[in-house]
Amino acid sequence: MIVIGELINGMYKDVGKAISNREVDVIQHLAEEQVRSGATALDVNTGPYSKNPGDDMKWLVESIQKVAGVPLCLDSSKPDVIEEGLKLARKRAIINSTSADDEKMGVIFGLAKKYNAQVIGLAMDRSGVPDSKDKRLELAARIVAKAIECGINTDDVYLDPIVLPVNVAQAQAREVLEAIREFRLLSDPAPHTVIGLSNVSQRTKHRSLINRTFLAMAVANGLSAAILDPLDKELMDAMITAELMLNKNIYCDSFLEAYRKK
Amino acid sequence: MIVIGELINGMYKDVGKAISNREVDVIQHLAEEQVRSGATALDVNTGPYSKNPGDDMKWLVESIQKVAGVPLCLDSSKPDVIEEGLKLARKRAIINSTSADDEKMGVIFGLAKKYNAQVIGLAMDRSGVPDSKDKRLELAARIVAKAIECGINTDDVYLDPIVLPVNVAQAQAREVLEAIREFRLLSDPAPHTVIGLSNVSQRTKHRSLINRTFLAMAVANGLSAAILDPLDKELMDAMITAELMLNKNIYCDSFLEAYRKK
Repeated sequence: MIVIGELINGMYKDVGKAISNREVDVIQHLAEEQVRSGATALDVNTGPYSKNPGDDMKWLVESIQKVAGVPLCLDSSKPDVIEEGLKLARKRAIINSTSADDEKMGVIFGLAKKYNAQVIGLAMDRSGVPDSKDKRLELAARIVAKAIECGINTDDVYLDPIVLPVNVAQAQAREVLEAIREFRLLSDPAPHTVIGLSNVSQRTKHRSLINRTFLAMAVANGLSAAILDPLDKELMDAMITAELMLNKNIYCDSFLEAYRKK
Repeated sequence: MIVIGELINGMYKDVGKAISNREVDVIQHLAEEQVRSGATALDVNTGPYSKNPGDDMKWLVESIQKVAGVPLCLDSSKPDVIEEGLKLARKRAIINSTSADDEKMGVIFGLAKKYNAQVIGLAMDRSGVPDSKDKRLELAARIVAKAIECGINTDDVYLDPIVLPVNVAQAQAREVLEAIREFRLLSDPAPHTVIGLSNVSQRTKHRSLINRTFLAMAVANGLSAAILDPLDKELMDAMITAELMLNKNIYCDSFLEAYRKK
């Protein structure tokens, strides 16, 4: 499982403040803690209030790379902000993200090709968020087709079925789970699948319980990556255990510790 | 989800002692506690050391029915012991179990027909426990075919894919999960699926974590019933949450409490 730590995001108040004040230790501490807790990649998002998102992205990437050797997931709606990160990335980056809109895909897959990056493709387009598994599949198929057209390997694409909060779109959770299962069949080699996990529990009372239960269900359906909070120990325990049940790591009594030592 | 409480089983030392000494309060307390914790049926097993399992089954069924109004899951390898329970059962009983062996199925489905009971069918036969999803499917198909031949409704059959301990048969967990998904396609109306959950974590160090993670994964694959320990609150929380994600109960902030009040 590719675990993309979600905590370096200017949307969180403390992180937004650390970015605008250039508090390097706050960012580096978040990077180190997430990696220590099991993140194998780190999401980097300047947040909605950034005045110079390109500069902020550069500063974030440089600051993080001084302390963490994992790939970065460059998260912005603006291609030029992503490119500032791509220019500096030492490990192969993941671009977060393109929608299924043709024009956007052209730009983002172009960047991916230029910088040898991987891409998260969201199963949504200008007309909005899908409301069924079939609509998600249709959008995902469009992304895979465009990736191939642009010369991107299909296993460098992470298809995101768009997780919605269970408290407002309860019926969508099942559609997302089935979409994860079927996305894998869209190409050979199979695309990755990824979810923005925390969204499922937005504004609910039992966030960690909902997150970890949904993650185990998604892993059962073949999920290969997730953007999540790796500092939630119970969540990480559930993820490690779900992967154990799929025989991805060898059982030993201390399988949790063994995974974390890897 | 049909939750079959597993705790009234003479295999457990205290329960075995309570059965042989006719300590009715011990048994009734276990029945009441399991129902209060969310069991919708109770497994009843006289255990391996019972000297008069037929008498013990009668006593257990009578004792339990004085305090619990849920269906009983009559659990014995001996058809005559099961029949003692069937004679007394006030609610529609579940027979636990038949294998896929033709002779055994003939006897057990005969009892089910006579007493209007449901039946758990184990995807195993004299040749042993299956080692793949396909073998499980073959055995399950045999059970469904025999049920139809005996005039049993296919939705009165609970197909059990045989859960094995992850510490000795790790590769089987994935096969079981896929079997659960495919068993549902064996007939219309679909058969139920059931697992003996606790078996997956036998002699492991993190039993509750493994149980609840595996249960969420099984629910994602369409599991409709499980024999488990309903007193494990975290396990029940995971089950309730997994069903919520499949839209089986309506979300509210207090969905855990709401489910338990039902």
